[in-house]
Order: sequence, then C-alpha cells, then structure tokens
Amino acid sequence: MYLTQSLHRAAQQTPDAAATIFGDRVRTWSECLDRVARLAAALRSLGVGPGDRVAILALNSDRYHEYLFAVPWADGVLTPANIRWSPAEIAFSLQDAGARVLLVDDAFAPALPAIRAAAPVLDTVVFCGDGAVPEGALAYEDLLAAHDPVPDARRGGDAPAGIWYTGGTTGTPKGVVLSHTNLLMSALGSAASGEFMTPGGRLLHAAPMFHLADGAAWVARNAVGGTHVIVAMFTPRGVAEAIATHGVTDVLLVPTMIQMLVDAPDAAEFDLTGLRHLIYGASPISDAVLERAAKRLPTTEFTQAYGMTELSPVATLLLPADHRVDRLRRAAGRAAPHAEVRIVDAEDTEVPRGTVGEIVSRGGHVMLGYWNRPAETAQAVRDGWMHTGDGGYMDDEGYVFVVDRIKDMIVSGGENVYSAEVENALAKHPAVASCAVIGVPDPEWGERVHAVVVLAPGAEATPEELREHTKTLIAGYKAPRSAEFVDALPLSGAGKILKRELRAKYWSDADRGVS
Amino acid sequence: MYLTQSLHRAAQQTPDAAATIFGDRVRTWSECLDRVARLAAALRSLGVGPGDRVAILALNSDRYHEYLFAVPWADGVLTPANIRWSPAEIAFSLQDAGARVLLVDDAFAPALPAIRAAAPVLDTVVFCGDGAVPEGALAYEDLLAAHDPVPDARRGGDAPAGIWYTGGTTGTPKGVVLSHTNLLMSALGSAASGEFMTPGGRLLHAAPMFHLADGAAWVARNAVGGTHVIVAMFTPRGVAEAIATHGVTDVLLVPTMIQMLVDAPDAAEFDLTGLRHLIYGASPISDAVLERAAKRLPTTEFTQAYGMTELSPVATLLLPADHRVDRLRRAAGRAAPHAEVRIVDAEDTEVPRGTVGEIVSRGGHVMLGYWNRPAETAQAVRDGWMHTGDGGYMDDEGYVFVVDRIKDMIVSGGENVYSAEVENALAKHPAVASCAVIGVPDPEWGERVHAVVVLAPGAEATPEELREHTKTLIAGYKAPRSAEFVDALPLSGAGKILKRELRAKYWSDADRGVS
Repeated sequence: MYLTQSLHRAAQQTPDAAATIFGDRVRTWSECLDRVARLAAALRSLGVGPGDRVAILALNSDRYHEYLFAVPWADGVLTPANIRWSPAEIAFSLQDAGARVLLVDDAFAPALPAIRAAAPVLDTVVFCGDGAVPEGALAYEDLLAAHDPVPDARRGGDAPAGIWYTGGTTGTPKGVVLSHTNLLMSALGSAASGEFMTPGGRLLHAAPMFHLADGAAWVARNAVGGTHVIVAMFTPRGVAEAIATHGVTDVLLVPTMIQMLVDAPDAAEFDLTGLRHLIYGASPISDAVLERAAKRLPTTEFTQAYGMTELSPVATLLLPADHRVDRLRRAAGRAAPHAEVRIVDAEDTEVPRGTVGEIVSRGGHVMLGYWNRPAETAQAVRDGWMHTGDGGYMDDEGYVFVVDRIKDMIVSGGENVYSAEVENALAKHPAVASCAVIGVPDPEWGERVHAVVVLAPGAEATPEELREHTKTLIAGYKAPRSAEFVDALPLSGAGKILKRELRAKYWSDADRGVS
Repeated sequence: MYLTQSLHRAAQQTPDAAATIFGDRVRTWSECLDRVARLAAALRSLGVGPGDRVAILALNSDRYHEYLFAVPWADGVLTPANIRWSPAEIAFSLQDAGARVLLVDDAFAPALPAIRAAAPVLDTVVFCGDGAVPEGALAYEDLLAAHDPVPDARRGGDAPAGIWYTGGTTGTPKGVVLSHTNLLMSALGSAASGEFMTPGGRLLHAAPMFHLADGAAWVARNAVGGTHVIVAMFTPRGVAEAIATHGVTDVLLVPTMIQMLVDAPDAAEFDLTGLRHLIYGASPISDAVLERAAKRLPTTEFTQAYGMTELSPVATLLLPADHRVDRLRRAAGRAAPHAEVRIVDAEDTEVPRGTVGEIVSRGGHVMLGYWNRPAETAQAVRDGWMHTGDGGYMDDEGYVFVVDRIKDMIVSGGENVYSAEVENALAKHPAVASCAVIGVPDPEWGERVHAVVVLAPGAEATPEELREHTKTLIAGYKAPRSAEFVDALPLSGAGKILKRELRAKYWSDADRGVS
C-alpha cells in the first residue's frame, strides 16, 4: 500500500475529471499525474533520494496537493511544516527532520531568512507561490517544465510516508513518523464506517493541509475517489462560497470553524444544501452550535473524528446517528473499524466502564514512532498501545468521553479535578466568552483550581461571582478558587488552548515543571 | 492490525448483540469473546505455538467463526481445508502446511482415517460437530469448558494470518499465505467503496467459509460490525429462509447460487425484501439471471467482487450503479480503494486500453507468498505486481473485462481465441444448458476449438448445429470445429469449471502438457 496508489487509480478511472479546484485553476487527474511525475523528477534532480525528507511551508493550494503525491512518488518523506508556528519553531522542525529541501509559498517567503539562519540543513528552496520568486529560490512551474516524468517509486507498506510535527500544547515539538500503511488504515477504516466521505464526491480543504486532520481527509478522499476543492485558508465566506460554487459534498472543520461558518452574516447568502458530510475533530461540539448548524446545514450529516497525529489520526468516530442521541453528543465516539481503544490506569490495566483513565489505542494506525526519539516513542507506545495522554472514560456501549488531558488534571486537596468539567460549568455563565482552567501551586491545597477567562464583549464578572456560579453546577472543591481575566487564550495550530503557556508563569519557580 | 481486533471492538460496543446465529443457536459477542479465548487456551495446551498452523475441515457453523478468531488469538496460523477436495488432496494440503492440529465436523469425520494415513504430520484432531465424537478426537465443547481464557496474542501486521490452498483448476495445490494487513486492507478497502456491507447489518454465510470469498466477507462484516448468520451449506430454500427469518441484510453468493435462489420454487414463499447487498464473485452474472434476480430481490443492490485468493481476495469492484449500465454488466469492475490494477503484456509492459493482456494488481492486499514455494511466488509476484493469470482488457474508464484464463486461451491457426467469448455465443443456443470451450491438439490448426456441452433437459443438438449457431454471433475461426456432449462439467470448489480435467484426455499424449 502506497499513498500514490490512489493517484494512479484516479488517472486510470477518471482522467478527465477535476482532481483539484483552486480558485479559477482546475486540474484534471491526468494532468495531476503528469505534473506529480515531473515534480518528483525535479526533486530527484535536486538530490532527493530514498527516505529523504522534503518539507513544505505554505497555505493550502493545489500545489500542496501535488507535493503530497510527488514526495512519495520520488521515494521521499513528507514533512509538512506547521504554518502557525514561529520561524524559530519551524526552523527547529526542519533541522530536526533534516529536511534539505523546502517548498514555500508567497505567504511564508518573508520568513525564509530567519528560517534559513536557524536551519542550516536547508539548502534548496522551491517557491510554490504565484508571486515573485524570492532570491535564491527555484520556481515550481519552471522545475515542472524542465523535467520529464519519472516512474513512481511505489514504495509503501511500513516505510515512512511522512513526518508530522506535534507537541505545540505540551512542550518540545516531536516528529511523528507515519507509514503508508498507517495512513491508509486510518483512511480506509474511517471510510468503511460508511458515514465519512461521499464516494466520488468533492472534499473542501479549508482547515490547514499541514495538519493531519485535513491530511487524513485528503488520504480518505483519494481512497474513495473524487475531487479536492481547496481554499488557501479558512474564512466563513470563502468556505460558504466554495461549497455553493463547486458542489462540495464533504468538508473537515474544527468546531470553532463550524460556529463561524453558521454564524457569519457574510456567508448567509450561499446555498449549502449540497454538503453531505461535515467531519469535525479536536473537541466535541456544543449543543448550541449543533442546533444552529442543523438549521444552516439541514442536509448535512455530522461525524466527529477523535484521535491524534500519532494515530494517523483517527481512533474513534461519533457517527451521524450518534449525534441524534442527546447523551452521546458529548462523546468522542467509538473505536473505528481499524482501531482498538480502551481506558487504562497508570499500570496499563483496563479500568471498569465509567472510570476515568488514560485513553489508549492499538492497531495498524499506530505511528512508527517519534523521529529520532526512541525514549519518547517507548514511553508513548507500550505493548503496541499508543498512550494518548487524554483522560477519559468509556460507557457500556463503548462510547469514549474525553474529560481532560492527563497532564491537565488538577489534584487539589487530594481530589482529582478535570479541568474540562470546570470549564463546561464556567462557560455557562453569560459573561464568559471562553475560558481555561489550570492547576496552580497552592501551599494549602497542593494545587489550586484557577480559571483564566475571556469575558464576552461588554460583560463583567468577578472571580467570586464565577466561583459561586460554578458551585451551582459542580462540587464545591472543583470550583475555581482564583481567576484572572485575559483578552484572548493562547491557541495551538490545531486550535487547542495552550495550557502550558498559561501555567508557565505560575510554575516556573515551583518544583512541578511545565511538561 | 490484527484479525481479532474486531472481536474486541464488538464485545466492547455490542456485548449483548448476536455475534452468530446458527440454526437455533445464538451467541452474543461477549460469549463469543469468552469462548474464543478458551479455545485459544485449549489450542495452546495442545502445543500450538507462535506461527503454528491449525487446520479445519468442516461445513459452515458458528464454531467455524470461533475457529477463525481463536487461531490468531493463540498466535497460530489459520489453515482452512477445501471441503470439496478429495481426502488425498486435503491430506496433501495439511501435510504441505505442516498442520499438526485439525478441527473436523460430523460431515467430514468419516474421511479422517484416509486423511490421517496420508498426512502423518497430523497428531491432534478436535471434533467440532454436534454428533458422536470420533475415536481419537477431542470434543470441542469439552476443551472450552476445561480451559480458562488466555490473553490475545494480538500479533498482526505483516505476520501470516492464514494459509488458503488454491490451484484446484490449474494443477498442484499451493498454499497462499496472507498477512493480517493483507486481509484487512482488502476488507476495509472494499467496505470503503460504500456499497459492500451494511454497517451493523447481518451477513449470511451460505458460500463455504473455507473459501476466501466468504472468508473475506467475514473479515469485512467484523470490521464494520454486525452479526453473522450461518447456514451449514448453500441450499436455495435454506438461504431464503435464513434471509427472511433472521433479518439478513448482506449475502455473498456465486452466480450459480443466485440463479438457484431466484429460480427455486421451494424458496418462493420467503420475503427477501430485507436483503440490501448481494456480493457475488467468481464470474460475471448473465443479463437473464440479473433480470430475474431484480424481480425476486427488488430491494437488493448487486456488487461484483473480482480477485483471487492471492489478492486477499478483492482487486476490483463492480458497484450497484455500474450494474444499471448495460455495457458494464459484463465487466469485473474497477480497481477497489485499496488496489491498483493494470493490464500488461508478456514483458510486463502496460498495454493500451482495449487490448487484451494479463490482469495484474499491486497493493497492500498482495499475498506474502506461496507457502514454501519461493520460485512460484517469484513467478507470480513480480516487482510487487500479482499476476492473476487472467486475460482481460480495460476500457477508457478503468473497467476491467475478463476474457479468459491466460492458460485457457486457444491459439488456432495463428489466431487467438478466447474461450469465454465462444462459450458466451454457444450458451445462447436454446439447447445448451452449460458449456466449456477448450483447445485440443489438431494437426492442421495446431489447436482446434472444441466444445464440451451439457444439453438442457430434453433438448437435442448436433456439433454442426452448434457450430453454425456460433458462426452467426462470432467470427468463423472461433466457432467450435468439434463438440462432445456430457452430463455435467467438472467444477472446482469455487464453482469454476475444471478445464484442466476436460483437456487431460486430449493432451495426455501430446507435447503440450496439462498446465
């Protein structure tokens, strides 16, 4: 099994159908096959040999799609850089991966000098944008024109297909190495649920393609055939327009994007009734958003995919039918057709249903390992089980409910407090726009439950008020004993709150380091 | 990825749902998990170690299902024996595989002495039937009762999952070794087509479970969750009754079985409208049968799966929508979501669309190899491509049309004649019930086109009549120059005509051996 297999299949079965639609630029599958084989030839001529990492730092585009096929075609290893990171972090990942070649677009070309300075391994830059070619960079279209197609390496199976960097929320970035089989297992297993991707349909890429959430949707769309509709980045209007204009049937979004899409006044004019499947991840969707979404998207089925990059990335699916059951809407779903999932204690023993423990998963979708980090790999994957670091419990029907990151659990006065539970209670206060709950050092309680709150525009509240509100909903020992008000919460590239950063100022001097 | 993963998932998500329905015997998934873990313990106690082959020779049953899970659970390798073979052939396969342990049911217990005599490797027999335990055999239920569950070995990935013997139509049986990943790729890829298996539905096992056609449906049903309804063997009435009584949603049949099901007077009383998916293989379905089937099964979608054991077994799928297009009904479908398929010449170069060559396939579904036959493996799998031995062509949309076994092609007077084409023409004569066309030695033509014909009851025809009839449909040089009439055609376990046997009497003295 190899990532490029689907390209051969699409070019064989639907050569004249659109492979990619990116603004006004439409490429057929037969064009795509030709261009990928030329780009692979160019990469070879630039010295890319078997197993060499080739990076990209770019907004979404049809050339990103070509990159995703061309690197494995050339027998290289994909290394998509996180566009939300600073140049220093990006340079770290390129240097760590040993990526000699980088594709970069207009949006990120200005960061090149800083990246080059901090990533000396980088010797070749290919400009895949449409504007002026930066100094010292090669032009993408020139390279394609200058090279004849080469045959596909067709390497696959357990060989590394790519390295995706992760760790933004928990510390030093780590490269997650995934094989071709890893990625295909997750994609085919998810598609086998029958509720994931319309066969032969059109998938919109609005979430960033560097992230494996969208990357995995790309693999699944290729597996079942169809067309990629691509927008450079998410905007509510851009997404609505693309859905209406290009007959998009499927889209992957994070919950924040769903909310923005259904609430945006400037997106209201577009007909979204062609949308069949909306896949979302990163966090459950609130009932309020789901209700508004059901009105705006009356013909769309919702599927939640839970997992992580290390799981290629899907472990559980919450299917459309599950969304119609009240008690299940807070769940992350059940083990997908390719995955085994269980909840274990610190000794890796399975805990009884309903008991909180760590969510672990096993199967063909578990990563090969962290790039050059055997100790971290051994710590994360034990006896074949990937330890997600997420705390959760499972009900009697196998539905998984995520309660917290294990590291975000607060031990206050000897009691476990799940920050997610406190956050849900806090969020019900009308003055709270968004919030994060962390543990901070406390001489009396060991850790103290502390809230970091963004107030709604024009709203006011005191820490005492919020504590009293919370106590009406959950046990008193879980209510925040202190609170601070901020303008915004720090977010990772995947839209997750960076609690590490929130904790830093409280823990920098204490004996519990930031982990 | 491991075959037992789906058992854990089902027991976790639907512990009280039926895993198997076999006559009056219903077992839930939690019972099934317990029984499988006990059977695995029993196998271990019988000396089955990692990688050891464990055989079964039995009609379909719920215990066959338990065997399929228990052997990998115990870290053994499945070795399902072909129930249609003679005791000598079965013994050959057991001896070849080195299977020390054999499960056998009532139907095949009488063959034990002959098998034991010819397969000295066999030292332990477990009786999995319901009648009297044969002398020297251990009783299945006693073994389960006597052993406590052991943990699942959870070995999978590229490790061998089983050995399926094949070769009945072409000569010496060969053991096809398939890995866990092989089987799961084919199953998930087929299910990802969205037209294969009703999620959470009920699959009827009426085709023999030893054969990988049904075995693969078993893997796919487990992957998407649901229930196995099992009948000991195919009878039209038994199948119709099971569909109507047990809410069967999916079934795998070979075309002959479809014809018998829709035509059988004693099956007419049953309501079959619950059947959603009918998967068939082995050969295309005739328009006449399809029309009758559409009337009898008005709510059923038809999917053809083409492949072979060596492809785990699916390479192409002809989906329900394809069946509604006249010209596609003779096709074998297009490359499935897990497969690459092409048509090549004798030098392995891809031929132009419409040109006949050998059908080859590549992907994660290609077997590990033939058991202990590296030369045959190297001959069959070249540069990752499994060579099917089937002749066919591909149209401009990637649809594959199988014309013949490469070995069944006749070269007469320097012209290639595809026996399938001649057979299709012959079969249109009202007196012909079934037929096979072979090449026989001829001093003038090299090979002569020869027909072996089963006449319809009460019908009559002469070789000259059949030749003249055929010439009205296809070129004169393709029409049979001779014919013989027989009562029945020899069939393989998979229902394929054994042309090798038909050719034997003509070729035994000639220089072209039976291949």
